[in-house]
Amino acid sequence: MLETLRSKLSLKNPLGRALLGEFVGTAVLLVIICCCVAQALLSNGKMNEMININVGVGLAVAFGIAITAKLSGGHINPAVSIMFFSFRQMSFVKFVLYCVAQTLGAFVGAALTYIVYYDAINKYDGGIRAVTGDKATIGVFASVPGEHLGPINGLTDHIIGTAIFCIFICHITDKRNSYPAWTQPLIIGLNFVMIGTAFGYNAGYPYNPARDLGPRIFAILVGYGGEVFSFRNYSWFWVPLVGPMIGGVLGGWIYQLAVGFHVPDDREHKYELVATKNGKDIEDP
Amino acid sequence: MLETLRSKLSLKNPLGRALLGEFVGTAVLLVIICCCVAQALLSNGKMNEMININVGVGLAVAFGIAITAKLSGGHINPAVSIMFFSFRQMSFVKFVLYCVAQTLGAFVGAALTYIVYYDAINKYDGGIRAVTGDKATIGVFASVPGEHLGPINGLTDHIIGTAIFCIFICHITDKRNSYPAWTQPLIIGLNFVMIGTAFGYNAGYPYNPARDLGPRIFAILVGYGGEVFSFRNYSWFWVPLVGPMIGGVLGGWIYQLAVGFHVPDDREHKYELVATKNGKDIEDP
Amino acid sequence: MLETLRSKLSLKNPLGRALLGEFVGTAVLLVIICCCVAQALLSNGKMNEMININVGVGLAVAFGIAITAKLSGGHINPAVSIMFFSFRQMSFVKFVLYCVAQTLGAFVGAALTYIVYYDAINKYDGGIRAVTGDKATIGVFASVPGEHLGPINGLTDHIIGTAIFCIFICHITDKRNSYPAWTQPLIIGLNFVMIGTAFGYNAGYPYNPARDLGPRIFAILVGYGGEVFSFRNYSWFWVPLVGPMIGGVLGGWIYQLAVGFHVPDDREHKYELVATKNGKDIEDP
Amino acid sequence: MLETLRSKLSLKNPLGRALLGEFVGTAVLLVIICCCVAQALLSNGKMNEMININVGVGLAVAFGIAITAKLSGGHINPAVSIMFFSFRQMSFVKFVLYCVAQTLGAFVGAALTYIVYYDAINKYDGGIRAVTGDKATIGVFASVPGEHLGPINGLTDHIIGTAIFCIFICHITDKRNSYPAWTQPLIIGLNFVMIGTAFGYNAGYPYNPARDLGPRIFAILVGYGGEVFSFRNYSWFWVPLVGPMIGGVLGGWIYQLAVGFHVPDDREHKYELVATKNGKDIEDP
Repeated sequence: MLETLRSKLSLKNPLGRALLGEFVGTAVLLVIICCCVAQALLSNGKMNEMININVGVGLAVAFGIAITAKLSGGHINPAVSIMFFSFRQMSFVKFVLYCVAQTLGAFVGAALTYIVYYDAINKYDGGIRAVTGDKATIGVFASVPGEHLGPINGLTDHIIGTAIFCIFICHITDKRNSYPAWTQPLIIGLNFVMIGTAFGYNAGYPYNPARDLGPRIFAILVGYGGEVFSFRNYSWFWVPLVGPMIGGVLGGWIYQLAVGFHVPDDREHKYELVATKNGKDIEDP
Repeated sequence: MLETLRSKLSLKNPLGRALLGEFVGTAVLLVIICCCVAQALLSNGKMNEMININVGVGLAVAFGIAITAKLSGGHINPAVSIMFFSFRQMSFVKFVLYCVAQTLGAFVGAALTYIVYYDAINKYDGGIRAVTGDKATIGVFASVPGEHLGPINGLTDHIIGTAIFCIFICHITDKRNSYPAWTQPLIIGLNFVMIGTAFGYNAGYPYNPARDLGPRIFAILVGYGGEVFSFRNYSWFWVPLVGPMIGGVLGGWIYQLAVGFHVPDDREHKYELVATKNGKDIEDP
Repeated sequence: MLETLRSKLSLKNPLGRALLGEFVGTAVLLVIICCCVAQALLSNGKMNEMININVGVGLAVAFGIAITAKLSGGHINPAVSIMFFSFRQMSFVKFVLYCVAQTLGAFVGAALTYIVYYDAINKYDGGIRAVTGDKATIGVFASVPGEHLGPINGLTDHIIGTAIFCIFICHITDKRNSYPAWTQPLIIGLNFVMIGTAFGYNAGYPYNPARDLGPRIFAILVGYGGEVFSFRNYSWFWVPLVGPMIGGVLGGWIYQLAVGFHVPDDREHKYELVATKNGKDIEDP
Repeated sequence: MLETLRSKLSLKNPLGRALLGEFVGTAVLLVIICCCVAQALLSNGKMNEMININVGVGLAVAFGIAITAKLSGGHINPAVSIMFFSFRQMSFVKFVLYCVAQTLGAFVGAALTYIVYYDAINKYDGGIRAVTGDKATIGVFASVPGEHLGPINGLTDHIIGTAIFCIFICHITDKRNSYPAWTQPLIIGLNFVMIGTAFGYNAGYPYNPARDLGPRIFAILVGYGGEVFSFRNYSWFWVPLVGPMIGGVLGGWIYQLAVGFHVPDDREHKYELVATKNGKDIEDP
């Protein structure tokens, strides 16, 4: 039955498929990320500690990429898309459309979170959505900077964190490194677990403009109000939007200039020989 | 010796093998899940925190599926069976028999848990089995909704959580995604770790009617009484039975309609070429 | 240089190699397990919580097996050896020698732990080694039953826990399940992580007579005294020795009778076809 | 575009590539390790507990090795380099250059950490960098021994811990054990997770002279002063420099003498047959 339906319903347009993929993947990413944070925040830390968030968010990255990998390449993050755009591996129009699809997906993921934890949010804040104060629940949706963090350090945090993540996206997807296709989303997710154990304290390591913008817009619609953008006198909201875009491009080029360009092809060939030694060691000892 | 015995004792009937497999797999799933919760609850959280439960339950899903995969396909969950039934990949009779075998397995897993933690339960509750109150231990066996959670939100929680889990079961077992057979149960387990970090706060993410019903019936037999069904005026017990069945079908079809039908076959072929490049790069450079 | 030395120094006797392997593997297993517990106990839980112990012990099982797998098959546990003996896959003499090598390895692992945490133990107990009381550190070396646990429940705990672990050792090493050789020790370790999240509360899930006996003897030599055997009026020390031996045999045969004998060979063949589809789909479409 | 740039910019000199690789890999290692510790220390343990550090540091080892594996072999640790030097697998000059590149990389990793957590460190210590006392933050950069630990036990700790880690580096990279190339950095990282759950309580398991020296020098430059070397009357700073070098050589040779030399080649051949059975079972049934 499925094959029959498939032949009728499958999208033939590659760009359409890709945008659908980015939308679905980012929606999955966000419903998990936001629900992980909700589970920690709404239970006052009794249910989830930092390690649960590190693991859950890493798996959300892995499975969000995995489910869209064959449709769109599995970016689910404008910082990753702008990196590939800077490599001239995607056009400007496609880059912009990817960002839109990602932000829409993030919006839907935030909305699903709101449905899942509607009763819990109401119990926590008594029905009054707040961006600041003891009963603030905005952290479920958008990243919140620590009290110690100024905007300059916030920006360097986002640039360095995103750059390291994108260095490893390049490393993992570089054909010369021969990671099997099915492992790549999982290893990228594992890398983001590492990012979370290291860069979580400043502002919660979003490192993804769509992940931050989509839910922030959703939050306005459900009663958090314009404060989601205006808090701290508009000095913060642009940081998680701009920082990762700089970091993505920077990380991509650092990888290529410092590592990728120097991985020797013959060495790669040598590794292949090792990998296929079992099958070959009878013919060419 | 084993091979001789095998030739005498192996079940020839495929359905018999399948039902035995579902029974064993669900029993393994439940003894681990219930013991994980018991370790947390009976030690007042000193031994297990949420992360231990997330990891333990995820591994129980992985190994429960792995051990029955070659006998029955490794459903161990009526929500998964009804999804495959909705795909017309199993008959209605087989679906019902699977559900019965799963529920029986869950019952036995709960019974094994009771044996393992008999002294500990007695010490905790003084020998009086309770569904509510400070000394309640029903949570070891059946899922308990948080105080904040009403039945409507409970239902949406079960539908959305199960749907996301089943979307990924489809993704992971979809041949077009080329996950090696031995990795599939482990990756499904990993997905359930993710589910647990995100959807645990409402009602403990059972998302499996057999997992909830079998132990609930067992609990009546060992002294918890009819309150396991009647508490909250019968407004809860049906939620973990009905919600996952809706979510399973919904998730399966969302995957097919939004992702699965659009994964291009040629792309799949291209991935195969990459995967077999090592073996081929002599013939077709 | 290494190859030259290898040709001179390599042991030619397979049994000698095997016993050396069991010795080394169990020593590695024990130094990690005991140090994990020491890190938790001596820091009063500040450094290690249950999850660290679960992960550390699981990895110790994985790497302990991995390092000896090609020398001896990687039992590092008399309960596993007696299971293979009951399958007539090793002789009685070899089984006994394996147990001796394992216990000696466990002794050495305990001794290394004592060296690593000598200052820390002294600070904790003021130099007076104790089996009971507030300053007891015997738990670093041998398993200690929870206060709630009687010997009967202790025995059922050890039988059921070891049986489930051995069911999965059979599953993972069963050729019909096609786990790649290099993954098997890691997946067995993962299974033991699961065991630890579920069966840790009663008596710390040793499930390995050598793991318990070797360090217990070592403890006598460094001042813990005969109380390591006599505490609770000699009602406990035999439980972690006898229980796992029963559980190992039981689990092995449950696997074979309930699952292993029924895994169809043709199904296995079918899986192989899937696994080799990439290489074959040109020849036989 | 990338391929064009690559042909122009790639380093042709293998030693230059190798030193660049060691520099980049150790910088990645250190920025993650130091940020993990910073996240724990500066948040007073609210954000990171030991498990986050164990996981984060293990992943830093894995990805630090992975990114440099094809350029330099992925040592990123003088203790590993001296082991390979003792095997006569690298020259003395190359060994020294590797150590210099690793220490420079570690210095840069520490500097990046300082940039990421600049505001947070200032808030924690009020702008006064301290090596001892309540507001000490030196632990972010260099390892600090526990109060219970004397220098002798510190040395045995570093020797035994590093030896076990290096035993497993040998095991994992030993061709006879057939780990696929892409898995080796990840499994080495997993091994270091194990090391961290077992050997963290004495002095934080650095087990890498470059990891300790580079950040310690950086710390002097940003205001911690000479006390980073002189504290405890100069009785500690040499321990994490000397101990791992002894442990690395010791571990390497223990592996070869106790395990590696005895892994039979024919057994290896047998394993290969299993591994290639899928491809062969038509030709030789």
